[in-house]
Amino acid sequence: MVIRNADVKKKDLFPGASRKILARGGKLMVVEVRFAAGSVVDAHTHPHEQASYVVSGKLALTMEGREEILGPGDTFYAGPNVSHGVRFLEDSVVVDTFTPQREDFLQG
Amino acid sequence: MVIRNADVKKKDLFPGASRKILARGGKLMVVEVRFAAGSVVDAHTHPHEQASYVVSGKLALTMEGREEILGPGDTFYAGPNVSHGVRFLEDSVVVDTFTPQREDFLQG
Repeated sequence: MVIRNADVKKKDLFPGASRKILARGGKLMVVEVRFAAGSVVDAHTHPHEQASYVVSGKLALTMEGREEILGPGDTFYAGPNVSHGVRFLEDSVVVDTFTPQREDFLQG
Repeated sequence: MVIRNADVKKKDLFPGASRKILARGGKLMVVEVRFAAGSVVDAHTHPHEQASYVVSGKLALTMEGREEILGPGDTFYAGPNVSHGVRFLEDSVVVDTFTPQREDFLQG
């Protein structure tokens, strides 16, 4: 199943933040998120495993009691219910992948 | 768990093709692959689910009897044992995610 970026409507999360649900199936979902510099995603948890890849920009990840600066090509993995929060230091594009799928994202 | 791109040694697959195993844990693995224009990945299957995101470049995906051209931001999902093959039309960087992890990639 092919999902082209241009065919997907972005969902605005808050000013300067949006996401697109891209390819998904079975127990795997790919979500592209865009955040403007200065955006903050408060620390949060979910039962889904998450792995994220920074496509562009720069962010500060707080996870497991540490802050780490990530740039293009860098990645992180958050296990089930592991708290993670992010401050965006530059306008950024990040690919978040989840298993299982974030059914909660499909509802609005 | 943070994995920085620069800290990971690439594995050469064939001339013009390499991969880096990036963040992984539990049932999720992120792999960055780089292919030079003209590279071909023959149609193949694996029992793992795969979702891929094109970071840069251009490729022709053959899956489910069709060829699709994908560029930056485009994605595909291949379910377990679904045949997929790729011709790279430009130098490309792609993020492949798998569930469960590709244990076979960890062995050399």
